[in-house]
Parts: sequence; C-alpha cells; structure tokens
Amino acid sequence: MGPERKSHILSKKEKEIAAYHEAGHALVYSSIPGTEPVRKISIISRGMAGGYTLQVPSEENRMRTKTQFMAEIAGLLGGYCAERLIFGEMTTGASNDLARASELARRLVKEYGMSPLGPIVFGDTNEMVFLGREISEQRNYSEKVAAEIDKEVEQVIKSAEKTASEIVKRRKSLLEKITKTLIEKETIEREEFEKIIGKKQPSIYKE
Amino acid sequence: MGPERKSHILSKKEKEIAAYHEAGHALVYSSIPGTEPVRKISIISRGMAGGYTLQVPSEENRMRTKTQFMAEIAGLLGGYCAERLIFGEMTTGASNDLARASELARRLVKEYGMSPLGPIVFGDTNEMVFLGREISEQRNYSEKVAAEIDKEVEQVIKSAEKTASEIVKRRKSLLEKITKTLIEKETIEREEFEKIIGKKQPSIYKE
Amino acid sequence: MGPERKSHILSKKEKEIAAYHEAGHALVYSSIPGTEPVRKISIISRGMAGGYTLQVPSEENRMRTKTQFMAEIAGLLGGYCAERLIFGEMTTGASNDLARASELARRLVKEYGMSPLGPIVFGDTNEMVFLGREISEQRNYSEKVAAEIDKEVEQVIKSAEKTASEIVKRRKSLLEKITKTLIEKETIEREEFEKIIGKKQPSIYKE
Amino acid sequence: MGPERKSHILSKKEKEIAAYHEAGHALVYSSIPGTEPVRKISIISRGMAGGYTLQVPSEENRMRTKTQFMAEIAGLLGGYCAERLIFGEMTTGASNDLARASELARRLVKEYGMSPLGPIVFGDTNEMVFLGREISEQRNYSEKVAAEIDKEVEQVIKSAEKTASEIVKRRKSLLEKITKTLIEKETIEREEFEKIIGKKQPSIYKE
Amino acid sequence: MGPERKSHILSKKEKEIAAYHEAGHALVYSSIPGTEPVRKISIISRGMAGGYTLQVPSEENRMRTKTQFMAEIAGLLGGYCAERLIFGEMTTGASNDLARASELARRLVKEYGMSPLGPIVFGDTNEMVFLGREISEQRNYSEKVAAEIDKEVEQVIKSAEKTASEIVKRRKSLLEKITKTLIEKETIEREEFEKIIGKKQPSIYKE
Amino acid sequence: MGPERKSHILSKKEKEIAAYHEAGHALVYSSIPGTEPVRKISIISRGMAGGYTLQVPSEENRMRTKTQFMAEIAGLLGGYCAERLIFGEMTTGASNDLARASELARRLVKEYGMSPLGPIVFGDTNEMVFLGREISEQRNYSEKVAAEIDKEVEQVIKSAEKTASEIVKRRKSLLEKITKTLIEKETIEREEFEKIIGKKQPSIYKE
Repeated sequence: MGPERKSHILSKKEKEIAAYHEAGHALVYSSIPGTEPVRKISIISRGMAGGYTLQVPSEENRMRTKTQFMAEIAGLLGGYCAERLIFGEMTTGASNDLARASELARRLVKEYGMSPLGPIVFGDTNEMVFLGREISEQRNYSEKVAAEIDKEVEQVIKSAEKTASEIVKRRKSLLEKITKTLIEKETIEREEFEKIIGKKQPSIYKE
Repeated sequence: MGPERKSHILSKKEKEIAAYHEAGHALVYSSIPGTEPVRKISIISRGMAGGYTLQVPSEENRMRTKTQFMAEIAGLLGGYCAERLIFGEMTTGASNDLARASELARRLVKEYGMSPLGPIVFGDTNEMVFLGREISEQRNYSEKVAAEIDKEVEQVIKSAEKTASEIVKRRKSLLEKITKTLIEKETIEREEFEKIIGKKQPSIYKE
Repeated sequence: MGPERKSHILSKKEKEIAAYHEAGHALVYSSIPGTEPVRKISIISRGMAGGYTLQVPSEENRMRTKTQFMAEIAGLLGGYCAERLIFGEMTTGASNDLARASELARRLVKEYGMSPLGPIVFGDTNEMVFLGREISEQRNYSEKVAAEIDKEVEQVIKSAEKTASEIVKRRKSLLEKITKTLIEKETIEREEFEKIIGKKQPSIYKE
Repeated sequence: MGPERKSHILSKKEKEIAAYHEAGHALVYSSIPGTEPVRKISIISRGMAGGYTLQVPSEENRMRTKTQFMAEIAGLLGGYCAERLIFGEMTTGASNDLARASELARRLVKEYGMSPLGPIVFGDTNEMVFLGREISEQRNYSEKVAAEIDKEVEQVIKSAEKTASEIVKRRKSLLEKITKTLIEKETIEREEFEKIIGKKQPSIYKE
Repeated sequence: MGPERKSHILSKKEKEIAAYHEAGHALVYSSIPGTEPVRKISIISRGMAGGYTLQVPSEENRMRTKTQFMAEIAGLLGGYCAERLIFGEMTTGASNDLARASELARRLVKEYGMSPLGPIVFGDTNEMVFLGREISEQRNYSEKVAAEIDKEVEQVIKSAEKTASEIVKRRKSLLEKITKTLIEKETIEREEFEKIIGKKQPSIYKE
Repeated sequence: MGPERKSHILSKKEKEIAAYHEAGHALVYSSIPGTEPVRKISIISRGMAGGYTLQVPSEENRMRTKTQFMAEIAGLLGGYCAERLIFGEMTTGASNDLARASELARRLVKEYGMSPLGPIVFGDTNEMVFLGREISEQRNYSEKVAAEIDKEVEQVIKSAEKTASEIVKRRKSLLEKITKTLIEKETIEREEFEKIIGKKQPSIYKE
C-alpha cells in the first residue's frame, strides 16, 4: 500500500464497489472461526488498492492447519463474492486477492501435503546454481501429476468460494450495514465493527 | 504512433481501407455501453498505423468489469470486422488490433478470473532471479489446463467478434457515412462524430 | 545475394535446373493477380543463389490481404514446382524459397489471424528481459493449439503448392519458352518477359 | 536450527501440538528396526523448528538398504501422523518433514534403483556447462517414465505413511506418555525415553 | 582426421573389421549412381578413425536432389552394413557414420522438404538473441508434428539401410576382394579400385 | 577413488556386504566372454567406494560391439545382483554401478544404434553457442520416440540384469569362495583369483 489518497478521487460508483468489496472481506473473516479478528476496514485508497481490511497480526506462528488456510482463502475471496452478489459481476479490484488465494491454494497442495494427493511435496526444486545464483527450475513431477495438482487446487478454490459466497448471501443485511457505514465514515475500527456484527471476535491464539 | 504523414502517401485504395477500418472501430465503440466516448478519428497516418481512433482517456481506474473488457475487445475487432464486411477479407492493418485483443482476452482468463474457469489465477509466475533480474518463467499449471485456457480465450474472442460483426453489419449505413466523411475530411472530431451517429456519448465515469 | 559470378561456373545441367526454377517463379507470379510485376529474371549466380527473379518493389504497404499472401507463397513455390514437373524431383536450390514460404505461412496463421482459427494471435510472446535483452520465449498456447496451428500452416502451403503446380503444368509451353530464353540470354528484363508471356503486368498499386 | 528460545513463546496449544509431533517421531523411530536410537527429544524451539528429535549419529555409512530408507521415511512422517491422529489434521509444522521424506523417496526410486522400476538410474543429468558452471538440466527420460516414477514415489510415501500411522495408533498410550513427559519437562534424554518405552534401543551398527 | 598412425597399432582383428568397413563404404558408393567416384580407401588410422574412404570432392554445388542424398546416406551406412553382414553385429567404429547419416536424414525432412510431409520447413528457428548471441531455440512445431518428422526420418534411414544392405549382400564377393586387397596393401587408389570392381566411375558433374 | 583407508573402519557387516559385492562383479566379468580379465579385487576402501574390482585396461579401442557392452553392463550389475541374492536386498553401495550401467545402456541405444530402433542416432544435439560455450540442448526427437528409447534402455538393463543374476545364482559356491577369501585377505590378485575360479582368463585383444 502507498500513502493515503483522499477518497474523493474515487468516483461515487467506485466508492460503492470498494465499500462492498471490503465489507465482503470483513464479513467472511468474522464469520468463520480460525481467522484473526478484523481490526480496521477502510475505503481510503492507498496506492494501488481501493481499500483494505486489516486483521490482528498473527503471532509468529509455525503451525497453521488446513482449516485455517481454507478460512484465509475464503476471506480473500470475500470481496470478489460480495461484488458478484451485489453487482452481478466482479471487477479487476479483486484480482490481487485472487492471485493471493491461488498462491495459497497451490502451496497448500504442493508444499504442505494438505490435499487428497497426500503427504507428498511437489516441487520445482531441481534448482541449478549459476554463478552462485539459481537460474532454472524444473518440475520434479510429471505432466500427469501436474494435472492432478491443478484439479486439487481448483477444488480448494471452489470450496473456499462456496463458503464465502454462502456467507455474503446468507448475511446480506449485515453486508449492507457494514457497507453503508463504510461509505459514510470511510473507516471502521474494530470496536465499531464488532458493534455492527453484534459480537466480539475471539483471537485464535489466546487460549 | 509517430509524426503525422501527409495522407497522399496512402494510395487511394489504402485510404479507403483505412477509412472503413477506423470507422469500424468508432462505430463499435459508440454502439456498446461501457466504453469511453470516441473523441477523434483520423486516417492521417502516424508512423506504422494507417489511422487511429481515440477515446476519452480513462481516469485512473482500478475497477474494470468483464462487461467493459468485452466491449473493449469488440471495439478492437471493429476495424477487422469492417474490412471483412466491405472487402471480403481483412488486411494486415488489423493485426495490431488483433494482438491487443488477444492479449486482453488472455489476461481476462488467466489473471482476472473472469471466465468459467473461475476465480483462479494462472500464471507464469515461477520466476527465477538471476543477477537480480528475472530470467525464466515457468507455467504453474498443466498442459491440460493450458488447453482449457486456450478454449476460454477462443470463446472470449469469438464472442467479441460476433458482437462487433453484428454491429457493423446491422449499422452498415452509419459505417458508410462515417467512412465517407473520413475520406473527405481525413479527421473527425467528437462533436461531428456525434452528429453523424445521431446521439451524444455518455462517459461511463461521470455519475 | 553477392556479386555476380560468371555463369560458366554452373555446369550445363545446373544451368538448366536454375533456368527452369526461375522461370517457374516468374510464370507463377505473372499468372496470379495480386503480385507485383516481374521486372527481371536471371541465372547469373549471385553468392549462394543460382539465379533470381525480381519483382517491382512494393510501395511501403501496411495493408496486405490473405489473397496477396497466398499469391506470394505460390510464387515462392514456383521454382520448386517447376523442378518437380520437369525433372521429377526438387533440388536443394529451392530450400531457401521453402523456408520463406513456411515462414510466411506461419505468420499468416499465428500473427495475422488469417486462418480458420480466427482473429486470435498466437505468440511466443512471454518474453523475459535479461540485462535489458530478451532471453527466453515461451509459447502462450497449449500443445493442442500448437497442433491446430500446424494443421492450418500445412493447409496454406498445400493450397499454394496446388496453385503453383497447376500453373506450371497448365502453362508448360510458356515455362519452356521462358526457360529457353533464359538459357540463351541468361537475363530477361521486364519488357522481353511480357513479350514472351504475351501480356502486360498491371501493378496492383496503381489505381 | 537456531539458538534455543524460551518455550513460553509457544502458546499452550502450540506446545501441545509440538509435543505430540516430536513424540510421534520418537515413537515411530523406536518402533521400527533399522533406525538409529533416539537420544534426545525436545520442544524447546530452535529457530524455525518447534522442536526436534535427535538420533544417534550414523557412522559414515555407504551402504543403506531400502528397508532402512523406508524406516527413515516412516520416522519422518511420524510427526505428521501423530498430529493427524490426535488433532484430526496436520499443521504446517510438519511440512519440512514431508519435504525431506519426499526427497528421500524420489532418490530411492530415481537414483538407487530401489523400486519395481528396477536397477535403472533416471537422472536430470544432461547438464550443460556454462562459463564453467552448470546452467541447465534436462531429463533423460520420457514423460511416460516420469509418470511411472511419480507412481512409485507415491507408493513409497503411502507405504511409509501406513507404517507410521499404524504405529502411532496401535501404541497411542505410549504416544500420550511421551507427550505428557515432554510437556512437563520440555526435554527427554535417551535413558528416560527408554524407560518410558520400556526397552533399550539397539544400534544397528554395533554388531 | 589426425596424422597417420602406423596400422600395426590396430590389432589383427580390428584391422579386419576396419577393412570390411571401408570396403563396405566404397562398394555401396560405387554401386549407386548419383555419388562421386571413390578415389582412395585406406585402413591406416588417422586420429579417431580406423580408416577412411575418400570421394572426389564435389564442386561447389547448390543443387542436390533427394536421390543424391539417399545415395549419400546409403554410402554412409555401407560400413555398418558390411560389419553386420560379415561379423553378425556392428561396432562403435560405425557410430560416427550413423550420426552423419541421421543428421542428413533430418535435414532432408526438416529443411529441404524432401519427404511426404511436403514442402514445409520445420525449424528450431525461434532464436533469441542474448548479448548479441543466440541462446535459445524453440521448436516452431507441435509434438504431434515432431512425431511425424521422426517417422519420416526413420523411413529415410531404413530405406537407405535396405539399399546398402542389399548391395553388400548381393556383391559379397566384390566386398571380399576389396577387403583382401585393403588388408594386404592398406591403401587402394582409384585406379586399382576401378580394376577390382571392373568398371570406371563416372563423375556426376561432367556432362 | 581416493587414498586407501584401513578396512577396520568398515563394520563387520559392511565388510561382508562389500566382499560379496566385489565378488559379484568379479564372478560375472570372468564368466562372460568379451570382457577383459579381472586383475585385482579388494575391499580396502578408497574414498567413497567400499571396494573395487579392476580389469586389465583396454587398449585404445575404437571398435566395441553390443556383445561387449552387454557383458560390461552385466558385470556392472554383478555387485547389485550378489547383494540381492545373499542379503535379499541391495544397498546404496551399488548405486554408482547402476548409474554407469544406465549411462552405457542409453549410449548404446541413442548413440551407437545398437537397439531394435536401428541405425539412427538420437541426440540432444541442437546445441547453442553462447559466448563460445554451449548453454542449451534440445532433444531432436519427439516425446513418442523418447518413450521408445526408454523402453529399449529398460530392455538392455533387464537383459543384463538377468545375465548377471543367473551367473551369481548358478555359481553361488564360487561366489562364496571368492567372498570368503576377500574377507580373509582383503585383496586378491589375478593369479589367486584364477586359482579360485579354476581357469585362466583370456584377453579379448591378444589374437
């Protein structure tokens, strides 16, 4: 993100899209256990992004489960799903989220062994060293397995999409409430957010 | 584009082709909602291009929809479709447009998740760093998925082609009118264009 | 081409093959509308080439049609077809023509969208920049599409081959006439050529 | 591993997961003949790792059998299996073990000829030398064989997984005992470990 | 080739193999029209080669036919066929000939359009420039076409093999005669060779 | 190999494995005609190797047959087969032999034309030159042919494995005798070896 820009540069329409988008993120995150609390939502643009949703920073955590990853990916798709629900289609504003979601999904399948393919790590790990630097990678698996990996990645994304989709649909009125407040105030802090959604968000790490 | 060249260097035939081509662009753009207004059409060559059609510049816009992209792609194919309608075949003058249309179509499918393949990002993103620079990319998806991507890209282009085709066919008389004026005057500004097509072009961003 | 070499270095047999070859080019070019007039044919070797056929130089032309390309490709295959007709097989003297014909055919299909595959551009365009230079290209289409492209390229070449083949066969006596004159005089200028073929060659650009 | 960190930085939950994880390793290693004795288990974090299980260092040994490798791989999967048994799913804390297990499995199949594919070595051995360094490798086998290799690697991992899985399930009470002690004491030396499991661990090399 | 080595370094057995090998070359070359006359055969080793068969040097010839190439390839396989006929199997002494034959066969199919695939050139011609040098090539055809090319290359080699095979078998007594002389004299010049085979060898270029 | 190490560093078990391994090599070599005589066997480790079997050095020989290669490959697999026969499985001590055997098998099929695929050379010979060095290779054959090559390589290895296997099984008592002596004396010279196997080994080159 870059420095804040006055939001009047966003056209009214864009402001509305950005608000639903961020509200979508926040709503999905706060609806699924296993994600850190939302602490701030804003549609004041920073650099490239039209807005942002911040969660409480994780402690340095070496142990994440597939459940947590799926929640994360669903949250990332929250903006995309909200746009689709309200406007009938998505905008390129969601493409960065999609990229991160896809990357996470691929890691989940290829590096963490968290798919039906089992506890095997698939890497592009035959790295060559050239003048002390890596210059080339080569898959260490066949085209056949590459297709299986693609299928599992698709499953992960579709499952997370379904989760996020159902949440924004089922809790549409909450979505509208958060959006309305965002458009008015441009920024919502954690306390106010918890008032809107009507509950406190527990940290997953304080037990 | 380069500096203007006197149009008498274009042979009479080429001038005619260029005029229909640019008229095709302008006609398609102005017939589909979701594109910025045409503000100038010209067949005075600049550098490589035989002519050009300029739209009102977009504001810095982070949020484009698939509908807008399809309109853009259809507009890009407007020159090609006009040439084919009038002359029975296309010329290489359209190849730059085709390249841009194909590139946009590929981005739409691979980076923006705007195809039936869903909200997955397909990248050539396993980039290696070499002496601080990237030197190699490798697909992060299988041959099977590559074929699916190709199919969706083909769908996008065919759909846009159909749109543009129907417009130039259905509105052929308008096409002729714009072309005739272009051949006479060589340049048409926005106001005159709107007179010819008989309506004002709304900006998609002023609401 | 390099400096002229005295033709007595070509053996009598080679001289005959070269003459039929160039005559084949000239005959096909002048038999198909859409190509520039032949202005000079010679079997005085230059550098690597055993002879050459020169056409009137095109004006700087940004707009070529598929019809014109097919004519060009057929012309390029004229030498090969003449050799085959007269001698029963081709010689390596035609291989440069074949390379150029294949290159043109591939461009026609991949870059100009002039095949049944439609207005899609297939590129090896994911170029990487390394130290300011490109070092790698990667197809941006699947193996499946690569096979479809190959098929269309084959169609283009076969179609052009058929055209050129039929011309040299059907007009064999003209072929013999041109060849006989070439062997005698070693060079034929445009005027004399038009006398032999019995008609003037119109420029495609002077209208 | 890095310097020790005070374990109170691990949350109570993470400490529990780490304890079961290391106990899993230790239990599997000590249950299968062909592995060196466990000499120390700890959940005091070092650098990235949440804990560690140390075996008696092998003597420099040039001769390892498939049986020994399978035992090693099963041991590596011991942590993953324990997490799954107790918590229902794995954490990313096991991903390093999975990477090592996969690497070993691939070497077993490709370099040591220890699979049904037989005594053939499959390499990425067509290395090119560039400025005295290797810069590129190319498989020296076909895509078909790559798929066969993948299948055998999968077999190895699945077999080892089954072994480790059954051990932690069958000997669950032992697993709990080791874990409980680890949580209390944070470190268990060899002698105490052998007390818990009720037997001495023979070295495979002292005969 | 390198400087001559005294042939007594070749064991008696090797000398015999080398003699049959060179005799095979010479016999096939002189039995097929379309090849230049054999002017010298020797089993005095030079560098790596166990012997050599020299033909009259071609004049600078830009026009070679498929017939001539097939004769050349058959000639190259003459040594291999002789070894197989007499000894039941080939030796590595023939591997350089095989490499040259294969290379020629591939050029014939891919560059000269002299196969049933037709007058299409298949190249590895998408060369990239790196620091002014080419660093990478990429096939400009699909895997499907690669398989078709392989099939045609195989056809060319098999056909040439058949030709050479039949010659050495049918003319075995001549083969023996040439070999016997070679073993005795170590070198045979053109005149003596023509005496042995009982005819003069016409140059293909003196007409 | 590196400097000799005192064998007491090898454990008693490893010493036994190494002895059977080297005995296996020696037994197979000496049982098949077409290989040079064994002149020394030792289980005194040198560097990485647990032992070694030396043959009489070949004279510089340009002419090797498939028969000789198959004998060589079988000999290389002799250690592996002995380990399997006696201990039920192989150790990593054989992996270097396997690598050399595979390499030889691939050369036999791809470079020497000594397989049912015929006298065709398959190369990774489209080498590019970069700053005077080669930097990249590309197969000059299709994936389909790559699979055929793999099949033939497999055939070669399996055939050699069968040969070596039957020898060590059929002549097991000899294997035991050689091993016993090796364990006692650590080194066996040619003369003693010929006493054990009961015959002299003829050189293949002294005729």
